[in-house]
Amino acid sequence: MDQNIYLSNYELEEAIEHYFSKININRGKEVIKTEDSYGRITALPVYSKISSPFYNSSAMDGIAVDSRKTIGANEKNHIVLEEGKDYLVVDTGDPIPKEYDSVIMVEDLIKLDDGKVAIYKSAASYQNIRPLGEDIVENSLIVPSGHKIRPVDIGAILAGGVNEIEVYTKPIIGIIPTGTELVEPGVELKTGDIIDFNSRTFAAQVFEYGGIAKRYAIVSDDYEKIKDTVDKAVSQCDIVLINAGSSAGREDYTSKVVKELGQVFIHGVAIKPGKPVVLGSIEDKPVIGIPGYPVSAYVVMELFVKRIIEKYCGEKEKEHKKVKAILSRRIMSSLKYLEFVRMKLGKVEDKLIGTPLSRGAGTTMSLVRADGILEIPQNLEGIEAGEEVEISLLKEEKDIENTIVCIGSHDPIIDIISDLIHMRNDDYYLSSAHVGSMGGIMALKKGEAHIAPVHLLDMESGEYNIPYIKKYLKDKDIFLIKCVKRIQGIMVPKGNPHGITSIKDISEKNLKFVNRQRGAGTRLLLDYNLKKLNIDPSEIKGYDREEFTHLQVAAAVENNDADCGLGIYSAAKMMGLDFIPVANEEYDIAIPSKFLEKPIINEFINLIKSDEFKEKLDELGGYDYREIGEIIRP
Amino acid sequence: MDQNIYLSNYELEEAIEHYFSKININRGKEVIKTEDSYGRITALPVYSKISSPFYNSSAMDGIAVDSRKTIGANEKNHIVLEEGKDYLVVDTGDPIPKEYDSVIMVEDLIKLDDGKVAIYKSAASYQNIRPLGEDIVENSLIVPSGHKIRPVDIGAILAGGVNEIEVYTKPIIGIIPTGTELVEPGVELKTGDIIDFNSRTFAAQVFEYGGIAKRYAIVSDDYEKIKDTVDKAVSQCDIVLINAGSSAGREDYTSKVVKELGQVFIHGVAIKPGKPVVLGSIEDKPVIGIPGYPVSAYVVMELFVKRIIEKYCGEKEKEHKKVKAILSRRIMSSLKYLEFVRMKLGKVEDKLIGTPLSRGAGTTMSLVRADGILEIPQNLEGIEAGEEVEISLLKEEKDIENTIVCIGSHDPIIDIISDLIHMRNDDYYLSSAHVGSMGGIMALKKGEAHIAPVHLLDMESGEYNIPYIKKYLKDKDIFLIKCVKRIQGIMVPKGNPHGITSIKDISEKNLKFVNRQRGAGTRLLLDYNLKKLNIDPSEIKGYDREEFTHLQVAAAVENNDADCGLGIYSAAKMMGLDFIPVANEEYDIAIPSKFLEKPIINEFINLIKSDEFKEKLDELGGYDYREIGEIIRP
Repeated sequence: MDQNIYLSNYELEEAIEHYFSKININRGKEVIKTEDSYGRITALPVYSKISSPFYNSSAMDGIAVDSRKTIGANEKNHIVLEEGKDYLVVDTGDPIPKEYDSVIMVEDLIKLDDGKVAIYKSAASYQNIRPLGEDIVENSLIVPSGHKIRPVDIGAILAGGVNEIEVYTKPIIGIIPTGTELVEPGVELKTGDIIDFNSRTFAAQVFEYGGIAKRYAIVSDDYEKIKDTVDKAVSQCDIVLINAGSSAGREDYTSKVVKELGQVFIHGVAIKPGKPVVLGSIEDKPVIGIPGYPVSAYVVMELFVKRIIEKYCGEKEKEHKKVKAILSRRIMSSLKYLEFVRMKLGKVEDKLIGTPLSRGAGTTMSLVRADGILEIPQNLEGIEAGEEVEISLLKEEKDIENTIVCIGSHDPIIDIISDLIHMRNDDYYLSSAHVGSMGGIMALKKGEAHIAPVHLLDMESGEYNIPYIKKYLKDKDIFLIKCVKRIQGIMVPKGNPHGITSIKDISEKNLKFVNRQRGAGTRLLLDYNLKKLNIDPSEIKGYDREEFTHLQVAAAVENNDADCGLGIYSAAKMMGLDFIPVANEEYDIAIPSKFLEKPIINEFINLIKSDEFKEKLDELGGYDYREIGEIIRP
Repeated sequence: MDQNIYLSNYELEEAIEHYFSKININRGKEVIKTEDSYGRITALPVYSKISSPFYNSSAMDGIAVDSRKTIGANEKNHIVLEEGKDYLVVDTGDPIPKEYDSVIMVEDLIKLDDGKVAIYKSAASYQNIRPLGEDIVENSLIVPSGHKIRPVDIGAILAGGVNEIEVYTKPIIGIIPTGTELVEPGVELKTGDIIDFNSRTFAAQVFEYGGIAKRYAIVSDDYEKIKDTVDKAVSQCDIVLINAGSSAGREDYTSKVVKELGQVFIHGVAIKPGKPVVLGSIEDKPVIGIPGYPVSAYVVMELFVKRIIEKYCGEKEKEHKKVKAILSRRIMSSLKYLEFVRMKLGKVEDKLIGTPLSRGAGTTMSLVRADGILEIPQNLEGIEAGEEVEISLLKEEKDIENTIVCIGSHDPIIDIISDLIHMRNDDYYLSSAHVGSMGGIMALKKGEAHIAPVHLLDMESGEYNIPYIKKYLKDKDIFLIKCVKRIQGIMVPKGNPHGITSIKDISEKNLKFVNRQRGAGTRLLLDYNLKKLNIDPSEIKGYDREEFTHLQVAAAVENNDADCGLGIYSAAKMMGLDFIPVANEEYDIAIPSKFLEKPIINEFINLIKSDEFKEKLDELGGYDYREIGEIIRP
């Protein structure tokens, strides 16, 4: 618990300026074959060594002639020319010997016998001749320095007789994963292990930025071992990245190691996530300590490492495209940090709607799901719902526009639909946010979603979904696409060790329960049953522990982290759990009528009605799809 | 001269539809390591195998406790906890043993002696705990099929315990260069040789499109040899490209070979350039005959080969961004073809101005210089100057906006400026069109250029440039940036074999001359001298042969294609020619006053005044730069 170092809180721009003023970018140069230069950046301008073409050549199939011998030819007065004496047959591209100065097209010739032809119009000097140097003249500039080589450049440079060019070398980036808890992917995992996926993500990022990644073996949290590896990496690479241990905790050695071997210029930048970054150098080479949380690491890679690599390669900073979007919900932010919020975007009607994803720095999936990044300036405490914000895109705008925005209750079938819709039509996507059925209703109300999967049991009538739509969405014209009936029940470990037979047992046997979040249909189902049984929620141990999906609840039970939870049959089956049925419920899709006309929604309906999809439902188990795809007006 | 095959004239869309209905895209699949999957396309959806984290872990540095033991703690009533008995020290990420259910942050602890701590508020269940599956739950979808893997996906997939994934294979594209005239880059060239640069351009394009290129050795124009190579390539590759010989000339064997070994579906598409394309298949594999002219080849690669490779890889069609521009000059087009015109773009004031580049299918440099492509539909005979057109961008829009558009007279120093301006500032570019001094004046008049290099001798006054600006640009506020005085003279082969001493000798000795185009300052200089000498242009042999730059004239003389030409000293020196001085002239830069304020123009002026640039002028020779960079108002 020794924490004696305090991090600085440099503003981002200040940190970048300060750090880049301290480090040297020693760009290397190398001579490579022109044909291997795709994507490389020229270190020198490329001038042609020869002309292309380097001789006069025919621009047509026809005959090469001396134009003076054709003077006077016209429709009435044909002139006859003799092969070998007066003309030479040439194809396009053939060189024109010095004695000829013009080409007559084959179409303009009257063929006679004995290799003779007649012509009926005179030929102008240099007609149909591709002059020497028409494309490239000797000693002229083909591409300037600092130019990124494209395929067409390779052609022109070779045509200009230049077979080797000087380009900037790609920097080698050493990546050192540190942490006693880290294990290689693929090994048998035990509690406390963390798979070292960060170093692999960095390697792909380094490749994307234009560098060459060199990954070192995992180093345990041992000061001397880390120091030795950093020392070796500095001697073998142009830039060194040390992953994790960049903060100021008791086993955070990065800053100390860099200080001992070189210099730390900045430790801590006012960004979130990504604050505990170490910006230093050893032997004049940039050395960066990168935080361990994957999202923090991503932000630091994008803000610092990308810039350095691009400078090394001579590449220009590639910026993400920016779009305007309407914020669907309020985002609070600290005045202490410039914050990077991962956003989900959806084009609902004509508006691009931006919804913040999980802000946890540990959630790799928030990066996978993100369509863009919203920056909240340090001097703002937050942004209100409904405000227009600027978002840096991580995906193609067109793909976002071709995405069904699905917000509501979770079921594994949503994952399947999301995969199938894209497989059936390359242009289409479905993105889903699992916020529970009531969350889905609210999203439709605010115009943030195209569709909302719901399974809401009305406590009064015992009827599903329709009463909620009538109550909460009465001002909207909402239809219901019937989906599946599914079985909800109590998920328990294989063999049902506590012998649970009904909800009553949970409180009676004082078992550890794991619940779903407020607004989830499954939670309402629990509450409905507790009320019927006259059990107070406080009697359920773990009632307050909230998970967001059926699979999360099932995973908690599978890992003996809870004795039981309420959820659907397919989730229990996937996780190999036993299952005590409690109720059949109706899981349907609410949709505003105006979206029913959209081709992508049409494709969605065809998909859920397809045999392909029904086969998948049978595989999952516990679904009744007899009414699937029927559209009803509540 | 046997041309017995006539090409078809399929409309492009029809050709694409017909061809793609005839060929099979047999996409291969392979399993690769997740960490090597950057940029690949998933062939199956990727579901997690484990949860991440797969145990409950601490979200903070602190102590793990049983929350029940903390009940009742407050500011007045501290509760003392003992290490080992009541708590466990945990760092962020450490697993929480089953006996604990809550984490208290280190900041909220009062350290006592003997491993004891006091707390002053109670801990809630699951507080500061990162629950199992918070990021990824076992069996949940990480990325769907048809997804292109990004670095963040690699992290998430590995975190989800998936170390190998199934992706589409990259297709192997065989490239067969054919032509007796082809030689490898780097060999000693003789007249009639053509460097095989096309196959290298194709290889880079194939890489860019996502395929693997396999280049075969050059095959001479021999039917059997071509057939054998195609046969071999079909057995080794997924797609085969045969370069040149795709038309219907006497040595165009592609179509016949493909017909013998397989099927030709289309031979000839109504596009320009690119018409003589062969679209066929052999043993169910696409085989394409690609025209020999590099621009035709480029168009066919982009329209057909790119599409096929993308379908193989499971990639979506990447489209070029489109912008609107004003056409600077009229373009005529044939009703027979959909035409692809390479365009130079420039942002002059607020308008994006598009100017067509050379339309010759043989000019690789027009592709290198092009900022975009304009498609002229088949049903249009042309587009008028001033009309708004849509252009597919080949460069970043931002780079185009940061480009000085320089239209006018040519001098090798313009190439040097174009290189240096970008070297001195990454963001800046200069693009130049060599249309002669009068062309430059007209470009300024029409608002198509920022600057115009001119050297225009007024026949009456003998004064340079200013009389022309006053006459032609009197309605514009034009300044002159003084540039260089340079020596014009007669360029003759080394040793001056014809003993030329003055312009008079050209006609008197009946020598072969090579002239510059109408509107070029150098041509005006010749005319001025001929007039003074009372020589009629018809007395100069080759007066009608027009070249567009000093270097082109020098190259014609160097290659004994002409006995002499008029041009500047530096061009003669570059080409190793002898030089007979004729006149000193003033080569200056005309510029509208409103552009003088622009930072990029400021940089331009600083550059030409710099020692770095003056050194380059000294190296070239023949330049007097005493007034360089001075700005005068005519």
